[in-house]
Amino acid sequence: MREDIVPVDPPGGLRGLGLGEFRLDGGFWGGLQAVNTAATLQHCLEWMERLGWIANFDRVAQGGTGGERPGWQFSDSEIYKLMEALAWEHGRTGSSWADEVFTALTERVAAAQDDDGYLNTCYGHAGQAERYSDLSSGHELYCTGHLLQAAVARVRTVGEDKLVEVARRAADEVCRTFGADGRDGICGHPEIEVGLAELGRALGEPRYTEQARLFIERRGRGTLKPVTLLDSSYFQDDIPVREADAWRGHAVRALYLAAGAVDVAIDTDDSDLLKAVEHQWKRSVERRTYLTGGMGSRHQDEGFGEDWELPPDRAYCETCAGIASNMVSWRLYLATGEVRYADLMERTFYNVIAASPAEDGKAFFYANPLHQRSAAADVRPNEVNPRAEGGVRAPWFDVSCCPTNLARTLASWQAYAASVEGHRISLLQYANGDMRIETGDGTLALRITTEYPHDGTIRIEVLEAPGTPVELRLRIPHWAEGASLANESAAYAVEPGWAEVRDPLKVGRVIELSLPVEPRFTWPDERIDAVRACVAVERGPLVLCAESTDLPEGHAIETLRVDPAHPPRFESDGAVVRASSAPAPASPNPGLPYRSTLRRMNSSVEPTELRLIPYHRWAQRGSVTMRVFLPTA
Amino acid sequence: MREDIVPVDPPGGLRGLGLGEFRLDGGFWGGLQAVNTAATLQHCLEWMERLGWIANFDRVAQGGTGGERPGWQFSDSEIYKLMEALAWEHGRTGSSWADEVFTALTERVAAAQDDDGYLNTCYGHAGQAERYSDLSSGHELYCTGHLLQAAVARVRTVGEDKLVEVARRAADEVCRTFGADGRDGICGHPEIEVGLAELGRALGEPRYTEQARLFIERRGRGTLKPVTLLDSSYFQDDIPVREADAWRGHAVRALYLAAGAVDVAIDTDDSDLLKAVEHQWKRSVERRTYLTGGMGSRHQDEGFGEDWELPPDRAYCETCAGIASNMVSWRLYLATGEVRYADLMERTFYNVIAASPAEDGKAFFYANPLHQRSAAADVRPNEVNPRAEGGVRAPWFDVSCCPTNLARTLASWQAYAASVEGHRISLLQYANGDMRIETGDGTLALRITTEYPHDGTIRIEVLEAPGTPVELRLRIPHWAEGASLANESAAYAVEPGWAEVRDPLKVGRVIELSLPVEPRFTWPDERIDAVRACVAVERGPLVLCAESTDLPEGHAIETLRVDPAHPPRFESDGAVVRASSAPAPASPNPGLPYRSTLRRMNSSVEPTELRLIPYHRWAQRGSVTMRVFLPTA
Repeated sequence: MREDIVPVDPPGGLRGLGLGEFRLDGGFWGGLQAVNTAATLQHCLEWMERLGWIANFDRVAQGGTGGERPGWQFSDSEIYKLMEALAWEHGRTGSSWADEVFTALTERVAAAQDDDGYLNTCYGHAGQAERYSDLSSGHELYCTGHLLQAAVARVRTVGEDKLVEVARRAADEVCRTFGADGRDGICGHPEIEVGLAELGRALGEPRYTEQARLFIERRGRGTLKPVTLLDSSYFQDDIPVREADAWRGHAVRALYLAAGAVDVAIDTDDSDLLKAVEHQWKRSVERRTYLTGGMGSRHQDEGFGEDWELPPDRAYCETCAGIASNMVSWRLYLATGEVRYADLMERTFYNVIAASPAEDGKAFFYANPLHQRSAAADVRPNEVNPRAEGGVRAPWFDVSCCPTNLARTLASWQAYAASVEGHRISLLQYANGDMRIETGDGTLALRITTEYPHDGTIRIEVLEAPGTPVELRLRIPHWAEGASLANESAAYAVEPGWAEVRDPLKVGRVIELSLPVEPRFTWPDERIDAVRACVAVERGPLVLCAESTDLPEGHAIETLRVDPAHPPRFESDGAVVRASSAPAPASPNPGLPYRSTLRRMNSSVEPTELRLIPYHRWAQRGSVTMRVFLPTA
Repeated sequence: MREDIVPVDPPGGLRGLGLGEFRLDGGFWGGLQAVNTAATLQHCLEWMERLGWIANFDRVAQGGTGGERPGWQFSDSEIYKLMEALAWEHGRTGSSWADEVFTALTERVAAAQDDDGYLNTCYGHAGQAERYSDLSSGHELYCTGHLLQAAVARVRTVGEDKLVEVARRAADEVCRTFGADGRDGICGHPEIEVGLAELGRALGEPRYTEQARLFIERRGRGTLKPVTLLDSSYFQDDIPVREADAWRGHAVRALYLAAGAVDVAIDTDDSDLLKAVEHQWKRSVERRTYLTGGMGSRHQDEGFGEDWELPPDRAYCETCAGIASNMVSWRLYLATGEVRYADLMERTFYNVIAASPAEDGKAFFYANPLHQRSAAADVRPNEVNPRAEGGVRAPWFDVSCCPTNLARTLASWQAYAASVEGHRISLLQYANGDMRIETGDGTLALRITTEYPHDGTIRIEVLEAPGTPVELRLRIPHWAEGASLANESAAYAVEPGWAEVRDPLKVGRVIELSLPVEPRFTWPDERIDAVRACVAVERGPLVLCAESTDLPEGHAIETLRVDPAHPPRFESDGAVVRASSAPAPASPNPGLPYRSTLRRMNSSVEPTELRLIPYHRWAQRGSVTMRVFLPTA
């Protein structure tokens, strides 16, 4: 098995780090990955067996599709996402358990495939609706896209096995049905595009990329039948991809589509299409993105809001949208080499993706709001939950896209830690472990020692170096004003962006990067109405938050006021700020909370030191109220 | 026909003004009522014929229910609400057109009634789902409730006609099916409760009230099957009515239920139940109500939010929820005589209910947000629209509950203008026209001359007076600090609440009430996060707003800042405030709208006079951006 296997492998000089090229050793991401290995994969498998989502494949194979079918019409995709996760897991670690589960699932999936390659457990069989009879909501191509992504993971880690053959036949069926001479259709939920493009790359089948291109070009022409109360922007069928100004509608759909568009742009050398997505990224990041990196301001359509519509309490910030955002940013990074994409990925990794799973890897947040108004233990521990809106992570959801999406992302996290371009290595995400990259004329082996993001020191020791000199670049995050880089004899200041390591990389050399992780105030743009006159506190890449658990007697999340004259001070794993709070005066007759004179709340409760913790760890100590943006006194 | 017909007629001394007791003569409400008469009733009729919603009754009568049925499962209710409006219209004005349309509709409705009294065009016939097979979403009892309300209007205006007989048989079927010995069920959408209670009053049938009581008591025990992604609070089936603390879930459902609970409480002398609703009103008004009186903070479930969750941009404030809120407040007023209920009704009448219809009475707002971020002409003029979210009123909706609800409310508006309790008359809402009340020993006739709310002067001339002295009380709105009351010789100050007219009401006497309608700043409670550091401007009962149409060159709704040091000044029909605005500085790398230093926007555009108009008139000059709460400089 090759070490440099990656989930996304566009043509061009720049590639992501191979999953086998970086062995994580504890620390933030090593810890999350270990929990994924030890708990989440099995957890997903058990739930999907229990709910009958996997057995849906058996029912098709056995011709037993007449009765009621468990799960949503898109539940097949969850099995495929778990299979993708298992494939990366096996590829990265050699886990025989992961390989066995994958192989067993492959048998059951393969048995459900129709003779012509069509594969879906919800459509096209006895007692079911016709194939592709509901492109708006049917999710058939969406499911197929995830099948193809699972096959990509497999072909890159073990080669062309049975699942790859299943995927190839499924992709061929899609090309026959929806090709240039076929049906002029698209899927209501983008995903087939990234699946086809990457499988095309993995198998050297440009036909698949061409089919992805067709889907991209067909979109935005209003061909999808509208869904009740939602217009065509919900599934990005309102404006052609290359004409859109910003992301809109359902966030995961918008972002999967954008990721597919980048794939197509690169593979077809379409710089206009690439520029369109770059512009959409810039515009959406500037005006439609939360401090956490989260995307999606609305519950109703799980969607982007309008510019500056970023309510902290009703923030949707779906875990899957965070993953999808990183899928787009990563593709744009590989296409352009621009550091800003890796910057946003770091923010999203720490404050959306890492916020979702519970410590034990067996419960998850679906939405990731920045303000929890009421603490409600609304999650049923051993049941399928609609959402987890009371601030308690849930073991499984009715629509359970997030757990398996996390599983595949964490199983392949190494890919995003660095990029390789010939003899230039760029470190993007800092984590404790051993990196080992074959450069063609030897191995670059680095031992990275860090407690980042808890600590800002990243020590890089050269264990092996190839003959040809390697150029090592370090990403200095945009917030890291005052960072410095040191070798054994000297230190020099480095600016946000790229820091080139000046010293030749010789065996035994030690470089130390110091990133300033003192807590800092962060102020929102004044056009974000929902957090006007508020401030947040960040520390390194971490967004912090106040939890009711930490409030002294007499203080409450809803009446907290932070004194911005006292800068935040580091403490424990977060920060401390100075805050006051007091009950607001009673409302006047007739009781409406509006009055004709401005009476500020009196700080009848003594100012206090308020502890803030990393946002990604919120709600780990029971059901709480919480806020990221703190009103200022 | 009696003059004192009212929509709501609980036992007890206090009654609303009869529809025939107040002849409006132009002015704010006279104008709206005239447009309803001249345009909206016919408009609703034409749309429902065109869409086949009325023909659904013919299809049942003719046994033609096999095929696809136009409209939602609850479309019958729209016909009933129009019939209720027509009945009040005919009762109030003697309109023969209204009577003819009502009679013709009655024939078609009656023909669809099953032999046992069941009447619904969506369930229980060939090719349809079984009766009451989906209590959560089927809306059958909801539709029946509106049928009963239409029958109440009819029995009170013309007596027991064919529709009343239809309603009686329908109510009997409900009692048989869901009575104490029947099925232990409730309807997902409350409405049957108010319908049964009022029909019970109108026909002297305590059985109907008892059935309403059963429905109220059964609720809140989790018997309704949950709807996807919504929990049982959506239809108030989470907590028994008498135990709930505040309104929650779908706003119209919550408020119709509360109205029915008051009816039951009064008719069964259940003071605990009444107290529970009074408490819920107080709690919800204090923390879950918009400045406009609007209720409903969420689009997802058309529902109440949590305490202090009152976003202006995503405010739902459904027109029907405003009407429903007034249904509750009115019943509480009649039950308690407390002025605060009439205060909230005035706010809601002017700033929610009056905001919905277009000037021509042929287009409507469904949601009534307090902030429109982008101007989009998303309404198709001759088609059914999902909503009207782009800030353009729509002629008809997919779910078109609001137009017919407005029609019945405007057709019976007089009822809410005053209350009568023996010889005590209380004026509640001020409007230009002639009031004529039989007191038992003579007539009190008042000519009310006013341009309220444009002007704060209300002139009351006594045209006739009965033998026994009449006590006249005037509601002084809660905002009216500095009001005064004058007779021919003197003036005296009056406080918010009730002002008793001290002078005996003799023929020829003139009393003049002066309410201060100078524009004023209104500040939100600091716990309403979404409008922190903002101020609104009100004038009398009117909430004002800034529309992009009125902005001077270089200013934009999204960057406006009002200077609170300059009080608002009256101008034209609204006010003028001092404002500045400037583009915010460009965002720093990587483009996120958050930065580590607080840099306030520079007022690079000269301060300007900013015109504000009454909110209820917004979007009458084309598609615009708009805001009620204005950020302060």
